[in-house]
Amino acid sequence: MEMWFTEKQTENVGITCKTEKTLYMETTQYQEIALIQTLQFGRMLVLDGTVQTTENDEFIYHEMITHVPLFTHPFPKNILVVGGGDGGAVREIVKHPSVQKVTLVEIDGKVIEVSKNFLPTISCALENPKVEVLVEDGIQYVKKHKNKFDVILIDSTDPIGAAVGLFSKEFYKAIYESLKEDGLFVAQTESPFFNKELISKVYQDIKIIFPITKLYLCAIPTYPSGFWSFTMGSKKYDPLKIDENKIINIDTKYYTREIHKSAFSLPKFVKDLLK
Amino acid sequence: MEMWFTEKQTENVGITCKTEKTLYMETTQYQEIALIQTLQFGRMLVLDGTVQTTENDEFIYHEMITHVPLFTHPFPKNILVVGGGDGGAVREIVKHPSVQKVTLVEIDGKVIEVSKNFLPTISCALENPKVEVLVEDGIQYVKKHKNKFDVILIDSTDPIGAAVGLFSKEFYKAIYESLKEDGLFVAQTESPFFNKELISKVYQDIKIIFPITKLYLCAIPTYPSGFWSFTMGSKKYDPLKIDENKIINIDTKYYTREIHKSAFSLPKFVKDLLK
Repeated sequence: MEMWFTEKQTENVGITCKTEKTLYMETTQYQEIALIQTLQFGRMLVLDGTVQTTENDEFIYHEMITHVPLFTHPFPKNILVVGGGDGGAVREIVKHPSVQKVTLVEIDGKVIEVSKNFLPTISCALENPKVEVLVEDGIQYVKKHKNKFDVILIDSTDPIGAAVGLFSKEFYKAIYESLKEDGLFVAQTESPFFNKELISKVYQDIKIIFPITKLYLCAIPTYPSGFWSFTMGSKKYDPLKIDENKIINIDTKYYTREIHKSAFSLPKFVKDLLK
Repeated sequence: MEMWFTEKQTENVGITCKTEKTLYMETTQYQEIALIQTLQFGRMLVLDGTVQTTENDEFIYHEMITHVPLFTHPFPKNILVVGGGDGGAVREIVKHPSVQKVTLVEIDGKVIEVSKNFLPTISCALENPKVEVLVEDGIQYVKKHKNKFDVILIDSTDPIGAAVGLFSKEFYKAIYESLKEDGLFVAQTESPFFNKELISKVYQDIKIIFPITKLYLCAIPTYPSGFWSFTMGSKKYDPLKIDENKIINIDTKYYTREIHKSAFSLPKFVKDLLK
């Protein structure tokens, strides 16, 4: 018998993956969590039927949400991750020698637990002594902490349910206040094919608040359309005006010095979304 | 009743699209041709169950297989397209004012006929007076014509069935001889996630024959993994050393002057395939 897991990425298109077995499934107060063994992508974390991360392609998302902002800031010490309970972003952050403290604020403690149990190659840095893991509402956490962080990463699920507030202008204002005077942040901002309106809106919202706003892209096979965007808001540092010599050799599989800049070269139809 | 068309992109992963109706289906001596109306991507041309092109995302593939080589050559006049019976590459080629003649050699005349009937926005330039359309074997055609073309595009299906020979070293040697002394060619070379061995082999084969060999990438939602490669072999001109002022304004939705260069910035895991 063959078992296939299908995610409907929109009403009209989906990705379907052959599975070996379902390793875990539970419904928490926030969402349905599933951990599936797939043949193509290894183990896959699925929240409310939506692929969050897989062992085989997670490196792209986690490197790109982390190293682009962390190499844009000349000396990132104090980092906040909102969401990202799988630990992939944290694993990349602690590769930066300047980092002294990482705070991960994940609303659903079960995501952390499941990732620790089933995704050791992704969650491996959650026990690092520099890392503090908090199970609470990221929006409230950001509102309570002012002028504290060098870099904030919004490593959220899609803008449905608990994550809706993470895509609001009000939240971007709170992030601005939670950053130090030269701080910057990055949010994952969905597919430039399937989420055009969201990207336009988020970009304009961030642009009103931050002096420097830039969108960048990468290719991620298991995410809708395979093409993914991140939007950066920065108080002082421009990701395209960095000293490239500061991009030290860290162990990556996607990110390089060249990719840092070329990720901001936008296809014409994406550029047009930001006008 | 809902109808979904699923392409198994590998044995273990597929894309599935909701369909409105099947507009055409026929088995020729070469392949099974289907033309499906999908809700997400508009009309879709499917050969042997494999998505070839869709109305909504074809612009990416066709712009990238065309404008990167045509803007690498300073004065491309005589162009050959092998495959590409849908006409999308031809539509982009005739946007270049220097082009005097385009020869399209497609092995399956039915692909041309179906594209003319059902994909007018893609096939629209096939009747252009600069364009000659031949229904014959592209490999034999290339072998018969020496020292003739400025640019050759290998716009092939996957390396299965009739298209296998289009990925062979012997064919790349024939292309070398079919090009003028400053000619160059580009071939579509599959997904850097799912076709790693093919990419490595093709790159090495071309590198032995051509003094300049470069791989470039773009994001295409309906192609396996959403991430696609092209490999260029060039006798004289380097795509990264072009005079950018020669990149004139043509009507594109993906390709830009910036994209021309950034498409050659490879993620580390892709760079490693070429060693």
